[in-house]
Amino acid sequence: MQPYELSLAEASRALAAKELSPVELTDSVLDRIGAMDARLQAYVTVTADSARSAAARAERELAEGRSRGPLHGIPMGLKDLIDAEGVPTTASSRVRADHVAARDSAVAARLAEAGAVLVGKTHTHEFAYGLTTPQTRNAWDHTRVAGGSSGGSAVAVAAKEATFALGTDTGGSIRVPAALNGVVGLKPTYDLVSRAGVTSLSWSLDHVGPLTRTVQDASLVLAALVGGPAAPIPEGDLAGLRVGVPRNHYFERISPEVEEDVRRAIEQLRELGAELVDVEIPLTRYIQATHWGLMVPEASSYHERTLRSVPDLYAPDVRVLLEAGELVSAGDYLRAQRARTLMRDAWARLFDGVDVIAAPTVPITAAQVGQESVEWADGTVESVSESYVRLSAPANITGMPALTLPVGRDGAGLPIGMQLMGRPFGEATVLRAGHAYERATAPAATRTERHHLEAMKLR
Amino acid sequence: MQPYELSLAEASRALAAKELSPVELTDSVLDRIGAMDARLQAYVTVTADSARSAAARAERELAEGRSRGPLHGIPMGLKDLIDAEGVPTTASSRVRADHVAARDSAVAARLAEAGAVLVGKTHTHEFAYGLTTPQTRNAWDHTRVAGGSSGGSAVAVAAKEATFALGTDTGGSIRVPAALNGVVGLKPTYDLVSRAGVTSLSWSLDHVGPLTRTVQDASLVLAALVGGPAAPIPEGDLAGLRVGVPRNHYFERISPEVEEDVRRAIEQLRELGAELVDVEIPLTRYIQATHWGLMVPEASSYHERTLRSVPDLYAPDVRVLLEAGELVSAGDYLRAQRARTLMRDAWARLFDGVDVIAAPTVPITAAQVGQESVEWADGTVESVSESYVRLSAPANITGMPALTLPVGRDGAGLPIGMQLMGRPFGEATVLRAGHAYERATAPAATRTERHHLEAMKLR
Repeated sequence: MQPYELSLAEASRALAAKELSPVELTDSVLDRIGAMDARLQAYVTVTADSARSAAARAERELAEGRSRGPLHGIPMGLKDLIDAEGVPTTASSRVRADHVAARDSAVAARLAEAGAVLVGKTHTHEFAYGLTTPQTRNAWDHTRVAGGSSGGSAVAVAAKEATFALGTDTGGSIRVPAALNGVVGLKPTYDLVSRAGVTSLSWSLDHVGPLTRTVQDASLVLAALVGGPAAPIPEGDLAGLRVGVPRNHYFERISPEVEEDVRRAIEQLRELGAELVDVEIPLTRYIQATHWGLMVPEASSYHERTLRSVPDLYAPDVRVLLEAGELVSAGDYLRAQRARTLMRDAWARLFDGVDVIAAPTVPITAAQVGQESVEWADGTVESVSESYVRLSAPANITGMPALTLPVGRDGAGLPIGMQLMGRPFGEATVLRAGHAYERATAPAATRTERHHLEAMKLR
Repeated sequence: MQPYELSLAEASRALAAKELSPVELTDSVLDRIGAMDARLQAYVTVTADSARSAAARAERELAEGRSRGPLHGIPMGLKDLIDAEGVPTTASSRVRADHVAARDSAVAARLAEAGAVLVGKTHTHEFAYGLTTPQTRNAWDHTRVAGGSSGGSAVAVAAKEATFALGTDTGGSIRVPAALNGVVGLKPTYDLVSRAGVTSLSWSLDHVGPLTRTVQDASLVLAALVGGPAAPIPEGDLAGLRVGVPRNHYFERISPEVEEDVRRAIEQLRELGAELVDVEIPLTRYIQATHWGLMVPEASSYHERTLRSVPDLYAPDVRVLLEAGELVSAGDYLRAQRARTLMRDAWARLFDGVDVIAAPTVPITAAQVGQESVEWADGTVESVSESYVRLSAPANITGMPALTLPVGRDGAGLPIGMQLMGRPFGEATVLRAGHAYERATAPAATRTERHHLEAMKLR
C-alpha cells in the first residue's frame, strides 16, 4: 500500500510510529497528483514547493518530539474559495484571475496550526454557484460529472490526491460531490465552523466542512476546525439510538438502485441496535422556494460590484443566476426568511422523537457530463442540478449537521451515499451512527474500492 | 402624597410595610386615569374590573405572607401591541378592531407572575409605525405631541396614570416619548427581552422595554422581564467609569437648550467620578439608510396580507410607508443588513475605549401637534419624525442597550432627556450611570416636577 492510499487516521498512526515521515507522505500525494490530475482536474493550483517546505517543517517538529496532534504532517486540499496566505483564491472564475489571498482564512489558520500540509487548491463550480464543477471529472468515470460545488475536493479525496480536503456547502456542495465520488462529507451545524476568509455564495446558508475517506477522519478534521481536542467516537453499538426514516420527500423520485442501497444501509443501522422510527418530513413543499429565496438574492448582493464591472468574466450559467437575483424583491426574500424560521422550528420538533434521520444524499448517482435533466418514473422531468440539491437543501435551511457516507454502488460502479442528519450541534451523534455503519461494513467496501482503483489504473 | 404619585420602588416599600394595600394603590391609579385620561388619551383600553380583581388577589397573597417580589401589586400599562390574555390588542389601528388576545405575551406572563396589575393598554402610533402617537397628548402640554410610538405608555407614566408601563422600540419608540414626557425609558439589548406575543414592526430592530419614573424602577421591571432576581444597582460614585462624549452626530443639529442641559448632565457624571472620553461615532452617514433599509421592507412583509385585503383601514401615513416598502429590492435590503454588520462591529470597537456613551436622546423637545418639520441653524430642514429618530436609531441597528432619563426642561417647561448607551448586555453599567445621576440630582428634579404637576392641575 502506498502512503497516498492511507486514510488520515492510518497515516497519522504511521507518522506517530515513525513508520512514515511527513515528507514521504507529502511526496507520495504530490506524485499521485502528478499521475492523476491531468485527467481528473481536481486541482486549480498545486502548491508543491510550499507543501514540501511545510512537510519538512512538520518532520523536524516530530524529530524534536513535538506533535501537533492527528493532523500533523497530513496532506490536504482546500476548495478554492478558502483563502490561504500567499496562494491565489480563484473561485474557479476568471473574475478572480489576479486575486492572491493576503492572509489565511480562519479554517486554513486552524489547520496550519494543527500541522496539516496544504498540497493545493481544488476546483469549485464557479463561485460555488452550481452542482457539477465542469472543470473536474468524476473519480470513478471520467465521462461523469464530479458533482459540486466542492467537486475538486471530493475527487481529490476519492482519487487519493489528498488525504483530506475542505469544501463548502450552501445547498449540498460538500455532500453531493462526496456522494457522487464515494467519500465521506460533513456539513457541520451552521456557524460551528468559521466562514471568515471564505468566499461566500449565500452567507445565511454557507457552511465549511471536511471531505474525507472515513467517518473517523471527518471527526478528526472537525475537531481541528473547531479548535477543540478530538473526542473519540464511541465504539459501541447503536443501542438506544432512534433513527428516523422519512416516509415522504427523501425516497420520492429517486433511482431504485439508490433506494435499495440506502434502505439496506438503514437496515444495517437497525442490526447495530438502532431503533427505526417512521417520520414525516415537514413543510416539504416550501423547501425549494425557501432555499432559492434565500440563496439567489444573497449571491447577487455579494457579487453586486463585479457583476456590474466585469459581467462577461462570469460563466453564462452563473451570470444568469446572478442577474436574476437582482430582480428579487425584499418581500420575497423576507418570506423565505420567515419560512426558514418555520422550517427550523418544525425540524426541531421532529428531532424530539429521533436522534438521527437517515436518507439518501442524492436521488441519482453521477450524471453524464452534459446531461441536463432526469426523467422520473412518474413522468416528471427535473434538471440534474435540482435533483442533486433536493435532498440536501433542508440541512442548509435549518442549519442542522448532515453527514454523507458511501453505502454502495450502482450497476455502473458509481458510488451511492447515505445522508445522516442530526440536531444542531449534534455532530457527535451523527458521526457515531456513521462510524458504527462504517466499522460494520468497511472490509467489504474497501475490497470493492481496491477493485475499482485497480480498474482505474488499467484504463 | 397620593398613592398614584409613588414611584415603583416607593410603592413597593409601602406595600411591603403594609402602609398601603394593592387595592388602594390600584384604585388610586384608576381614579387618576379617570381624572386625566379624557384629556391625555394615554389609554386605548382601561381594564378596571380585572385590575381590581388582580389587586384583590395580590392583597390576599400579601395577607397570607406571600410576596412575589418588588412588582407585587404594582399597577402597570402595556403598550397596545403587547398581548394580554382576553384583552384586545388593537395596535391603535382599525385593522385590529376585533382582535382579542388568546393568551399572554411572554412579557405579560412574566409581569403577571411577578404580581404586577394590568390597569390598561396604552396607545401606540398605529402599528408602531411613527413617532407622534396622534391620539395621545403630551403629559406636560396638551398642544404638544406625546412622541411615539410608545406615546401612551410614556404619557401614562409621566401623568401618573400607571406606576410603570411597557413600550416597544424599533427606532426610538421607547426613548423618544420617554424623553418628550420626562420619564425614564430603557431599550434593552436586542433579544434580551422576549418579543413573543408582541406585534412586530420590524423584527430585526424591535425591542420591548420599560418606561418608569426612575432609573431604579427601570432596573426592577427589567429584572422581572428577564426572569432573574433584581440585582441592586451599585450605590457608589462613578469612579473608574469611562463615559464617551460624541464629537460628531449626537450634538449636531440639536436645539441649544437640549445641548446645554445634556452637557450639564454629562458634567455631572464627571463630578460623580466618571472619566469623560472624546469619541468619534462611526459610519454616521449610513445610519438612516441602514435603519430604513431594514425597517421598511420588514414592516411591509409583516403586513403583507392585511395591506392587500383591507388597505383602507390603515391611516394614510402608515399605509404609504407599507406600500412603499413593497417596492424595496432584496439587494437594497441585503445592503442594509451588511451595513448593520459593519456598524455593529464598529460600535463594538468604540466600546473598547469607553463603558458608556452619553448623548441627547432627541434633538428637540416635544413638537407642536401638527408640526411637520424643523429648520436648523445651518439652514437645513428635517421632518419632525426624522429628527426624533436620528439619535436613537443607532441602538436599534446595533442592538446595544440605551437608557433615557430626564435631565432638564426647556424654556417652555418641556422635558429634555439624556441617552446612555452601553455594550450589548451591559444594562447594569448603563443603569448604574443613570442611577448615580438620578440620586445626585433627584431632590431638585422632584421639586421641579411637583411644581409642574401643580401647574397642570390649575389648567
